[in-house]
Amino acid sequence: MITGDSSIPELNPPSRLLLGPGPANINSRVLRAMTAPLLGYLDPDFVRIMDDVAVGLRQVFGTKSFTLPVSGTGSAGMEAGLANLLEPGDTVIVVDAGYFGDRMVEMAERLGATVVRIPVEWGKVVEIGEVRKAFQAQKKVKLLTCVHAETSTGVLQSLTELSRLAKEYGALFMADTVTSLGANKIGFDELGIDFAFSGTQKCIGAPPGLSPCAVSTAALQVISTRKTKPYSWYLDIGLLRKYWEGGERVYHHTAPMSMVYALREALRMVQEEGLEKRWQRHTRNGKALRAGLQALGLKLLVPEAYCLYQLTSVLIPQGIDDLKFRQALLREYNIEAGAGLGKFRSQIWRLGLMGENSTPANVLLLLSALEKLLPQNGYELAPGAGVAAASKVLAQT
Amino acid sequence: MITGDSSIPELNPPSRLLLGPGPANINSRVLRAMTAPLLGYLDPDFVRIMDDVAVGLRQVFGTKSFTLPVSGTGSAGMEAGLANLLEPGDTVIVVDAGYFGDRMVEMAERLGATVVRIPVEWGKVVEIGEVRKAFQAQKKVKLLTCVHAETSTGVLQSLTELSRLAKEYGALFMADTVTSLGANKIGFDELGIDFAFSGTQKCIGAPPGLSPCAVSTAALQVISTRKTKPYSWYLDIGLLRKYWEGGERVYHHTAPMSMVYALREALRMVQEEGLEKRWQRHTRNGKALRAGLQALGLKLLVPEAYCLYQLTSVLIPQGIDDLKFRQALLREYNIEAGAGLGKFRSQIWRLGLMGENSTPANVLLLLSALEKLLPQNGYELAPGAGVAAASKVLAQT
Repeated sequence: MITGDSSIPELNPPSRLLLGPGPANINSRVLRAMTAPLLGYLDPDFVRIMDDVAVGLRQVFGTKSFTLPVSGTGSAGMEAGLANLLEPGDTVIVVDAGYFGDRMVEMAERLGATVVRIPVEWGKVVEIGEVRKAFQAQKKVKLLTCVHAETSTGVLQSLTELSRLAKEYGALFMADTVTSLGANKIGFDELGIDFAFSGTQKCIGAPPGLSPCAVSTAALQVISTRKTKPYSWYLDIGLLRKYWEGGERVYHHTAPMSMVYALREALRMVQEEGLEKRWQRHTRNGKALRAGLQALGLKLLVPEAYCLYQLTSVLIPQGIDDLKFRQALLREYNIEAGAGLGKFRSQIWRLGLMGENSTPANVLLLLSALEKLLPQNGYELAPGAGVAAASKVLAQT
Repeated sequence: MITGDSSIPELNPPSRLLLGPGPANINSRVLRAMTAPLLGYLDPDFVRIMDDVAVGLRQVFGTKSFTLPVSGTGSAGMEAGLANLLEPGDTVIVVDAGYFGDRMVEMAERLGATVVRIPVEWGKVVEIGEVRKAFQAQKKVKLLTCVHAETSTGVLQSLTELSRLAKEYGALFMADTVTSLGANKIGFDELGIDFAFSGTQKCIGAPPGLSPCAVSTAALQVISTRKTKPYSWYLDIGLLRKYWEGGERVYHHTAPMSMVYALREALRMVQEEGLEKRWQRHTRNGKALRAGLQALGLKLLVPEAYCLYQLTSVLIPQGIDDLKFRQALLREYNIEAGAGLGKFRSQIWRLGLMGENSTPANVLLLLSALEKLLPQNGYELAPGAGVAAASKVLAQT
């Protein structure tokens, strides 16, 4: 394998319509931004670019506090939050309603925290009474954490009461906004969130590789008065802040510049569209897709009251082979749909309309493809019903 | 700051010649690769691309063992190595000969290891007897680690004897190859290295953002039989391996695809050039630069016996204002030179000829610029001497 025999062929990945859980397709403006010339990591021109990104992130999170893109994917942001806010022996309550809730539990345990897990049935939201009970049963809770938009189920967990409860018990509040940022209002300052992290490849419209984070003043205070240093040097928010904020920037690690350029361009496009319009766009197209799927007789996992419009979970009808069906969708229509994750493997499809991909055209294309493919796989439906129902929603809004 | 007032202007970073410690300038083929369409993280086409990257990395590291690009910059690779190979209480010997040696000490301490630090004067290589003494003084050493190419000083530390010593005492051996990979032979298998990590933005020719790593069979064995899980889930090599290797790929985190594309294209270009030719190119141009600098009467920090040809440290002549001089170089010649780091701040300049930037043209341009600028700053020299000396070296080789 070390010899020159195994030469790498030309790079030509196929162009696909990515209607799964992310990454989503990216606007060519954002892709092109990555080809801009690199700069030194302390070049004043690069520092200005970093500042632009911080401003754009403050806007999407809804905060005046510290924001930065952590140099890793969404899971690096999750680990950054837990590793900086928790010290060994601290108690953390984790609302665990899916695959990414499980991941938080796993990470917090590795960091030596005492983890109180509140299990929630996948596809549901938490009973706030359960969280109160958990607080009451503990002497001192350092952190309450939950997933805002659970990518494994398609559930939007309201943060309002959880944040209030955390404050009532003197705990910090952290939220996973990987799939919500850019599609749902976060309201970081308004709700009193202390740490939120996200990914770039879902509803923000950039490639995967960075984890936008927001950190409240209270969280920064807790971080600066830790008894122990965080296990992770790479994700140490105190050190990263000296590079991302303030008059004299202190080198920490070489920033992934091209990714920062991409995120900056994506945030520019969010500004141009307007944040509220962007939320409305995701809602409208998601509503249309839901209406279309239901008109085809398909069952949705999550009721409208707490669904993610950017990611719709649909139960795979009896008798349909999950993998075979998704492969046909890919082969015949060039559409990637998302498979179920964890306990929902082979149970659901996850249909994403994220960022650039949340368009009426994609709603109609996806429904048309399903209307063609489902009957070929033995599922009976009324032809045209899905597209008609979706079109009606799109016409109304 | 949350209002729409602070709108982000168009992205137009200046195009500079980056002759500092990295990032270096990137070939447009590599930049363009990042604009290729994104794929799902388990798409068979993406898995093939991952496999290509793994093959290319095996070639540059010189190994048949497991390779992967960790989804973070070089420091993430450093942390991945330490976090996976060390468990709390394990003893690690760190050869610390510069800024990045210090970083290893800091990281290993945070991870709860017992750190035996061997301090080496900055700009020098380690006395092997010191390392032997350190081993003799310990009951059981889990890991010996050092920096192969110390970016803060420009020293190339030979790995041969260190690796042998580690084996003699039953310890694993880890090397920081951030600045050496692509410019120096690593010889991972030949020397018996157990863990090596690098960066993409130096001599490999891609933007910053990934950390290429190689892991020996012995290291994988140690990792798979740990008593405790690594503190870091994000950097858990055991989990990452299930995504990067084997028949059934298991999702860990969404890979930073565009960066993977860039690395793949950079590795293709390394293949096309040929690894040995690439090493020779870095050596030849570095030799020419050294000869030119010395002909100008400048003092080099590191003797030829153990210098990095891709990064030359030159002492700032008495009476010259470091910052003012580098700013003039940037303003008048569009060249970024590297400042000193840590205790060498304002003491040295670090002149990089890395990857795409290691060319005779850049050697001559840099020397010409210095020949113009140095006299303007009160430093007397023989005009033309630098370029002449460099040209002579370039003509000979």
